[in-house]
Amino acid sequence: MAEQNRRGVFITLEGVDGAGKSTKAEILSLELSAAGYEVVRVREPGGTPISEKIRYILLNPANSEMADECELLLYEASRAQLVRETILPALERGAVVICDRFYDSTFAYQCVARGLDEEMVRTANRLGSCGIVPDRTIIFDVPPVDAHARAVKEGADRLEGEGVNFQERVREGYRRLAAEEPGRVRIVDGTAEVEVVYRRMVAHLEDLIPELSGA
Amino acid sequence: MAEQNRRGVFITLEGVDGAGKSTKAEILSLELSAAGYEVVRVREPGGTPISEKIRYILLNPANSEMADECELLLYEASRAQLVRETILPALERGAVVICDRFYDSTFAYQCVARGLDEEMVRTANRLGSCGIVPDRTIIFDVPPVDAHARAVKEGADRLEGEGVNFQERVREGYRRLAAEEPGRVRIVDGTAEVEVVYRRMVAHLEDLIPELSGA
Repeated sequence: MAEQNRRGVFITLEGVDGAGKSTKAEILSLELSAAGYEVVRVREPGGTPISEKIRYILLNPANSEMADECELLLYEASRAQLVRETILPALERGAVVICDRFYDSTFAYQCVARGLDEEMVRTANRLGSCGIVPDRTIIFDVPPVDAHARAVKEGADRLEGEGVNFQERVREGYRRLAAEEPGRVRIVDGTAEVEVVYRRMVAHLEDLIPELSGA
Repeated sequence: MAEQNRRGVFITLEGVDGAGKSTKAEILSLELSAAGYEVVRVREPGGTPISEKIRYILLNPANSEMADECELLLYEASRAQLVRETILPALERGAVVICDRFYDSTFAYQCVARGLDEEMVRTANRLGSCGIVPDRTIIFDVPPVDAHARAVKEGADRLEGEGVNFQERVREGYRRLAAEEPGRVRIVDGTAEVEVVYRRMVAHLEDLIPELSGA
């Protein structure tokens, strides 16, 4: 479980569905590629053939009788495969890895929003991440009602179909993480035009990737 | 994760593939049913619709690039669903639950035989079992070469296709467990006719289920 020797940069993007993570990931990816970086974009749950099979079990509404512990462990299994098969090799090559959701989602959703035992979730997160820690985590903060409306419009899956109160607790979970680890976890106000929010995000990445400051 | 109030009896059967677990489970199940018990037989990995979907990912030879941590967490996810959906409700009704493999398999196979970090495996086992502990665990001990030949004859899956040296390490793992928890874990010599081995097993269950001693 020891962290490997790494030369790349590991960035994770967080926030409720509809908060704008994938749009910003796309622009960041294009900008870094243009600057000569190898960029690897992944998403959770999923991102490898095995992880996608696990994702299918997790997000299938037919599996509504899933126990909390089972769901937690499936997310961690999917994560472990993604870390070993994709993220660690990419970081070892020197790539910038941009991951849409990582273990902070598990903390915010499963622990704070759904009430699973905190020590259990933290232990599971250590197992699933194989000991790896993001270099920087950006949380896109938007009012839950907006995000929920957007997510529903796009067709809500099992996880996100739980309403605005649930999303409010997710937001509280994210805020706790930012308070606990201010060096790694940064909250970005996501309520503005895409380009404005993107520049807000980049301001939190320039110390890791100097080329971004000249853009 | 606290253990529930329980009235039933939770028995797990262990041993390498081909050691005779399912035959003995079948006879025990018939005998207990005849004595008026509700008997619930389950197997790992699997045993619930969600767990069977996870089993399919685990045992599919196409998934040979699976990371060790992913495999471990998938076993635990399958287990957690089985515990919450089937085993705990059955024990609460007063049933005898006979489970073909449980977390001792994970210890013997993943930790001792395959070399995964022991603390990681023990932690994962606590998560996946939701804190439940078998009342008695019977390990059927047979020479690995025999068990392997039998398993191969039945069509080896991904896990059991690793040869006799691997099976020898599994056996060593089981012996460690029996030494650590002599009250719960009992080794039964599995090299005899079915009826002989069955009576050896029953001798280790009579204190839990007195009706077995009169049979």
